[in-house]
Amino acid sequence: MQTRIYHKADGRTLWLYGREPHTLPAQEEGEPAPEPHSHLRWHPVREEWVMYAAHRQGRTFLPPPDHCPLCPARPGGFPGEIPFADYEIAVFENRFPTLSRNPGPVPELPAVKAAPGTGRCEVVVYTSDHQGSMATLSTERRELLLQVWAQRFHDLYADPTIAAILPFENRGVEVGVTLHHPHGQIYAYPFVPPVLERESAAFSKRSWIEDLTPRLGDYLVAQAETALAFVPPFARYPYEVWIAPRVRKPLPTDLNPTELSDLATLLGEVTGRYDRLFGRPMPYIMVLHAAPRGDPTFHLHLEFYPVLRAPGKLKYLAGTEVGAGSFAADVLPEQAAEQLRQL
Amino acid sequence: MQTRIYHKADGRTLWLYGREPHTLPAQEEGEPAPEPHSHLRWHPVREEWVMYAAHRQGRTFLPPPDHCPLCPARPGGFPGEIPFADYEIAVFENRFPTLSRNPGPVPELPAVKAAPGTGRCEVVVYTSDHQGSMATLSTERRELLLQVWAQRFHDLYADPTIAAILPFENRGVEVGVTLHHPHGQIYAYPFVPPVLERESAAFSKRSWIEDLTPRLGDYLVAQAETALAFVPPFARYPYEVWIAPRVRKPLPTDLNPTELSDLATLLGEVTGRYDRLFGRPMPYIMVLHAAPRGDPTFHLHLEFYPVLRAPGKLKYLAGTEVGAGSFAADVLPEQAAEQLRQL
Repeated sequence: MQTRIYHKADGRTLWLYGREPHTLPAQEEGEPAPEPHSHLRWHPVREEWVMYAAHRQGRTFLPPPDHCPLCPARPGGFPGEIPFADYEIAVFENRFPTLSRNPGPVPELPAVKAAPGTGRCEVVVYTSDHQGSMATLSTERRELLLQVWAQRFHDLYADPTIAAILPFENRGVEVGVTLHHPHGQIYAYPFVPPVLERESAAFSKRSWIEDLTPRLGDYLVAQAETALAFVPPFARYPYEVWIAPRVRKPLPTDLNPTELSDLATLLGEVTGRYDRLFGRPMPYIMVLHAAPRGDPTFHLHLEFYPVLRAPGKLKYLAGTEVGAGSFAADVLPEQAAEQLRQL
Repeated sequence: MQTRIYHKADGRTLWLYGREPHTLPAQEEGEPAPEPHSHLRWHPVREEWVMYAAHRQGRTFLPPPDHCPLCPARPGGFPGEIPFADYEIAVFENRFPTLSRNPGPVPELPAVKAAPGTGRCEVVVYTSDHQGSMATLSTERRELLLQVWAQRFHDLYADPTIAAILPFENRGVEVGVTLHHPHGQIYAYPFVPPVLERESAAFSKRSWIEDLTPRLGDYLVAQAETALAFVPPFARYPYEVWIAPRVRKPLPTDLNPTELSDLATLLGEVTGRYDRLFGRPMPYIMVLHAAPRGDPTFHLHLEFYPVLRAPGKLKYLAGTEVGAGSFAADVLPEQAAEQLRQL
């Protein structure tokens, strides 16, 4: 993988990753990003950090296609975030970060523990093509994306203040997506978020994924030599799918070339089946769960939470899910797996 | 409070609560409810129970107003769930329960711990009037509602299989509400859900609510002699509000008449301010957090999660919230409190 590091005029970094070296000349840049102001407050009853970034209220919201900030630069056109005429995969520091290298001062609060909103929020642009999706990328491009995630883990964990890293993708207006150009994000946290903390504790006892692998028959969606795509038998979302290497690997940097290639293939398999399930692009949240800093026993995996439970019917998170943390599902995992397998 | 217990023909119980004794004759009942089939599966990676109720896929979805199942019965009209010409507050066992007294068999699963979906799901109808909302109820009716919640805690904890109880209200199509008639729900779980477990552990160390009370100035929305409404300084949702008695009380059954009355007043204050905030009915999730069975140190409180962050803009739960459990907020709690105070 070739890497070009470009420093934007407003101080943010842009990385251009590709199979080929990136040598195009830089073009005019857009407006500089506003100063970030982020801080954390401790929730003493749930015992977790909450992140505050008030400057985000003004963030870009469904711009017209010729004002897409992720599209490549055109002479005389709208200057977006990536001042180059083309690229393969581009990563840049978010214009409206929830966490940042220079988060600004921590406010004085009367009765609550606060801390700086230190960390990183990056945008990962999968392609220079405004159209398409994870499913329509080439397998080679998805493989490059996995290498990019590995590189970001490598770079971000080099900063000792980063405790955990979450690559994710929100897809579809139903999950609040404000830009349709194919892209994901990465959050690098100065603390271990609750879900990763619990998963880390669970994997330290055993890898449930390795244990289940020989018995996954009814739950398989697709498989490759070194990786599996399956509906977990304890899925919380209708049509939830996980993709994991068969053998426990804590971090994307631990994956070998065959695993990278197999995971890239399954990423395409799963997202393609989602789009065929209800005959429309499936809105979903995708997250990559990998080891918090220094955790040697985590089993990395991708989790997809699709938000349609039937054609035209959304799965809402309501009282029991949001207020108690207990999910109610009305699609059985083995039935969801069979439907997805047959597509 | 007067109580009338009525046994529906399909075996479900209906409770009619009111200031006056309920003596109206029963009318024709609608279709019997289908057999529930609910079970639990253990999520070994998040270490929590997931509830499955596949029969719920066919549940009632935004019926036309003259087919509202919560409206009182009219001669020759649509037979709903409450076969009486009028009532004050009605509670009945949900037609499509996620948890039930007779949940049916537990499926054989290859690699996952499963258990019966034992518990209760009840619907709480606030008024016989199809129109209106928590804000437009009389204070007397809201006080009656608090007494009904207390009575339900008393009755449900009489069943030793119930470990925790969650009254909640989902309001607005934006949070997936399928019936507009003013109502809430109660889930009674055979386990302690993760959020209540964490809050219970936190309150066993100290009551953060009692500690903060003297320093809540900037965060107050409204107050009464024995109760407060405030934006928690660590709010996860924009315009999140909590209502709590000033003195620690674990359960609704522990509240004295002044506290019941003050909480009823504040329930109206908060929901009225929500509806004025953006000049439209505010969609929200409201939950009552009270002690799991046998927890003597819980400080009961109501939490409101409104889902609008600005006029016409929803707060979506996406990658970091759903995938990591860490919330990103873009409205500062002290600013939200000031806005709500001034309405």
